[in-house]
Amino acid sequence: MESGLLIVISGPSGSGKGTICKKLIEEMDNIKVSISATTRKPRTGELEGRNYFFLDEESFLKKIKNNEFIEYACVYGNYYGTLKNEVLKELENGKDIILEIDIQGALNVKNNYPNGVFIFILPPSIEELKNRIVGRGTDSKEVILKRMQCVYDELNYAFQYDYVVLNDEIEIAVNKIKNIISAEKNKAMRNQKLIQKIQEV
Amino acid sequence: MESGLLIVISGPSGSGKGTICKKLIEEMDNIKVSISATTRKPRTGELEGRNYFFLDEESFLKKIKNNEFIEYACVYGNYYGTLKNEVLKELENGKDIILEIDIQGALNVKNNYPNGVFIFILPPSIEELKNRIVGRGTDSKEVILKRMQCVYDELNYAFQYDYVVLNDEIEIAVNKIKNIISAEKNKAMRNQKLIQKIQEV
Repeated sequence: MESGLLIVISGPSGSGKGTICKKLIEEMDNIKVSISATTRKPRTGELEGRNYFFLDEESFLKKIKNNEFIEYACVYGNYYGTLKNEVLKELENGKDIILEIDIQGALNVKNNYPNGVFIFILPPSIEELKNRIVGRGTDSKEVILKRMQCVYDELNYAFQYDYVVLNDEIEIAVNKIKNIISAEKNKAMRNQKLIQKIQEV
Repeated sequence: MESGLLIVISGPSGSGKGTICKKLIEEMDNIKVSISATTRKPRTGELEGRNYFFLDEESFLKKIKNNEFIEYACVYGNYYGTLKNEVLKELENGKDIILEIDIQGALNVKNNYPNGVFIFILPPSIEELKNRIVGRGTDSKEVILKRMQCVYDELNYAFQYDYVVLNDEIEIAVNKIKNIISAEKNKAMRNQKLIQKIQEV
């Protein structure tokens, strides 16, 4: 059996990557989202072990020291990270895993797992992105301003990803990602066993 | 406007690449098959300028000398080639072009146009491939034997392609190629203009 795909989905804050990942999980078989660990405080409705593993800073730093993360990053003063033991076993079992992580984290994963599939979600425009972050109502004006300043620079990182997907209409964006996943499963380098099997007589 | 995709589809003789290309053209917009030039004699029903440009060997060799081909190859004693002027203008106009060519020709194209999308059609098995070639009824036993000897080696070239697509059920194979084309249009390197546009305020 070929191993599963590690699908890294990221993009600027407010690009809609969370909603896209939720729909992918709902609509596709054999795929699951990896739960990140974070030191950020839970938002209303967020559950331990479902949205995140919520850790205090001391525990998080200890896991960094023990090399338990595929990637971790400090964003807006909070740590976020992906635990190795949450991901690698599933991939070996042929399960596709989505990592929904920020750009810093994604580039770290790329260094360690270049065979991953790296997808950057593009907002339709800077202006639309601002409206979305404001509309979410979870962030202060100061935080929003700080985030908008980052967006320009973050978009330049898109070129370090394999794919970019415009999140203008959510259904179209989700379908494009499904097509990317299908295509990646047909990559020659991921089908060595199949080719060998055909050569057998 | 981003330029069109150069989609190279090849695979062993009898892999069904011709039927696949025909269906892609029927079912997709904005895509066309490039007509190859050849010195091979027309098969029953084949038309000049529709299936091939049929050239005598002297004309073909002259065009090679004048550097008029993207690729050409001599297969089973006949020349086949893709004329530059048939392809490049269409790509610049944003049209996707399918080249249905043999493996030798595909690898030549890859050297000159590494941005092309290289897809290798896999037959379900060596045995099934033999049945298909026999069933086509256009080739002598000697030709069939000669071809079967090549198939093993040809399958090793699959690893030099971007994608492999198993032609077990034709509709599934065609859909997989559609997904590959969709995914390739979302490659980050093909979307520089889009990203720049989003950054504008």
